[in-house]
Amino acid sequence: MSDSPLTVHVPLDAGRAYDILIGRGLVAEAGARAAALGARAAGIVTDETVAALYGDRIRGSLEAAGLRAGLIAVAPGEASKSYAGYAAVCDGLLALKIERGDLVVALGGGVVGDLAGFSAATLRRGVRFLQVPTTLLAQVDSSVGGKTGINSPLGKNLVGAFHQPRLVLADTATLDTLSEREMRAGYAEVAKYGLIGDADFFGWCEANWRGIFSGGPERDEAVAICCRAKAGVVVRDEREDGERALLNLGHTFGHALERLTGYESARLVHGEGVAIGLALAFRFSARLGLCSGQEAGRVANHLALAGLPTRLAQVPGGCGDADALLDAMAQDKKVRDGALTFILARGIGQSFIAPGIDGAAVRAFLEDELRAG
Amino acid sequence: MSDSPLTVHVPLDAGRAYDILIGRGLVAEAGARAAALGARAAGIVTDETVAALYGDRIRGSLEAAGLRAGLIAVAPGEASKSYAGYAAVCDGLLALKIERGDLVVALGGGVVGDLAGFSAATLRRGVRFLQVPTTLLAQVDSSVGGKTGINSPLGKNLVGAFHQPRLVLADTATLDTLSEREMRAGYAEVAKYGLIGDADFFGWCEANWRGIFSGGPERDEAVAICCRAKAGVVVRDEREDGERALLNLGHTFGHALERLTGYESARLVHGEGVAIGLALAFRFSARLGLCSGQEAGRVANHLALAGLPTRLAQVPGGCGDADALLDAMAQDKKVRDGALTFILARGIGQSFIAPGIDGAAVRAFLEDELRAG
Repeated sequence: MSDSPLTVHVPLDAGRAYDILIGRGLVAEAGARAAALGARAAGIVTDETVAALYGDRIRGSLEAAGLRAGLIAVAPGEASKSYAGYAAVCDGLLALKIERGDLVVALGGGVVGDLAGFSAATLRRGVRFLQVPTTLLAQVDSSVGGKTGINSPLGKNLVGAFHQPRLVLADTATLDTLSEREMRAGYAEVAKYGLIGDADFFGWCEANWRGIFSGGPERDEAVAICCRAKAGVVVRDEREDGERALLNLGHTFGHALERLTGYESARLVHGEGVAIGLALAFRFSARLGLCSGQEAGRVANHLALAGLPTRLAQVPGGCGDADALLDAMAQDKKVRDGALTFILARGIGQSFIAPGIDGAAVRAFLEDELRAG
Repeated sequence: MSDSPLTVHVPLDAGRAYDILIGRGLVAEAGARAAALGARAAGIVTDETVAALYGDRIRGSLEAAGLRAGLIAVAPGEASKSYAGYAAVCDGLLALKIERGDLVVALGGGVVGDLAGFSAATLRRGVRFLQVPTTLLAQVDSSVGGKTGINSPLGKNLVGAFHQPRLVLADTATLDTLSEREMRAGYAEVAKYGLIGDADFFGWCEANWRGIFSGGPERDEAVAICCRAKAGVVVRDEREDGERALLNLGHTFGHALERLTGYESARLVHGEGVAIGLALAFRFSARLGLCSGQEAGRVANHLALAGLPTRLAQVPGGCGDADALLDAMAQDKKVRDGALTFILARGIGQSFIAPGIDGAAVRAFLEDELRAG
């Protein structure tokens, strides 16, 4: 086992508590960790890109620990998070004879984690699963908290389950192979935690973000801080009846932009949509008199310094007019009874859930944003 | 509301307790019951046969109670319990704009209940659902207990979720429109409850089964007794870590027969497979010296009197040889680590879980059964 991975404990009830381990080299420990959970077989779910990089290493680790291991690789990208991808993964796991006491191992980014997690949640009505996130976004966000699912033609993440992993192994060395663009996209979610409820962490990010990108000790520290923040929210509100919605800061705008760009990652990836969404959420908050324009500016400046987009005009190919944006937002699953719910902020680190936001005010704001270019 | 439906309470924890109401005319009460749960919209999932019989009535009841209601009808039969059927139902519910506070209403037999229940379990990561079972099999078995799911090309019910309904409305008048064959198939599950753990009820069935078929008060009483038995097991072992497996009495053989007949209902329906399986389980128990041959004979005689098959030779088109049967059983999801687990009996009402049964003994028994014709 590695010397000293950072550990974040997620103290859920009913035997569902688990640890998130954060450190360099954890992929090679997957076998020993899986064996310690009493599993006899593991079905590794990954994508073709990650399989080429880490497939042999994780499979070797599992087999060396005495587990029967097989690997299922889907095509990289959001298109695999579909009904067809789900059927292929479930049938692949069944063909590997994964039984109730065995493990599904999700090796990859958010798409793989969501897809493998949902397959684990429903295969034989539920088998245990291990998250081995290999992107910054997955390490700080999607691998923690038990949200799993796939996309419907009618919208993203509309079908899924709450299914907590038994363990998360965040091997921060895997981020060395990420593209700059993927690192930046994940970094939008890192900054988000500061913006939601931890102004000190946002300040720390402003001072230390380069270390996160370059793989210094700041990287592990940032991942641990984000996971601790997320774990706290998840334990208090596992099924998003309340507080957990705060994690959607920047996401109502961001999801709309993803929808309007057809989920084409060549145009916009999730984290880029979130970065624009974060900047918009703060500027909209400032416009409503909730926070200062100076703070909204500080948010956008830091995201831009890290190489992230912060304005609608930066969406390649454009994103339509204010009505198109509003329509795309109204389809978001967080809409209740037709009312628009936003996460807004009274300042950096002071976000709150704002239900019943007036559509006309949003439209006027978006029109000004589009005019400003 | 109807005068006095029989009520069986299922006292699950964490706010998941629910009632099963049993009586004639309950379909027309669905609206008032759904409104009492605070739902504002309902997505009715059914099949084309049931839609023609009760679709307008349930929709009218829901709309009269102030709910927005839409209906999704799948093709009748097991083939709808597929990945494709699941995607169609989920997307249909999304198109009806069913949100987290709304209800999915499963109106139909076991296929509809399992498919609609799994869709409800996973739509937006879980919406509430109402079971309105319209077959005897669904009323006494599949609508109670929260097992939902679909079939994979690799086997039946291999993908699914535990998701408890908020209410079960067992309208026993709907059974008046069932074919004799469907009534008999459901009756195999009724008799099963006596055989598992209630010798008195089996005796009562021997005396009163005709009243169940003809729609006398015995029907409601039998459904209530079965639901009470199932509810007890489910509350003690919701996720089938132990005792719940008793409900599979007759099912290891039965599932194998369904598999070997290609799930063609023209050849064999689930309840017919279970009837043969119950008779086999008792004869196998007698052969192992666990119960008397006289009791095994009593079981088979009663099932035969009710018009059910009890011998392998009665499978239309045949079921292959002993090896084919063993192979089909070994694929059953209740197999753990390759060992065959059976539910056997020390007598009527004295069933127990028997893990680690020797394949050679099973093969010898099946060979004799096939020879006997």
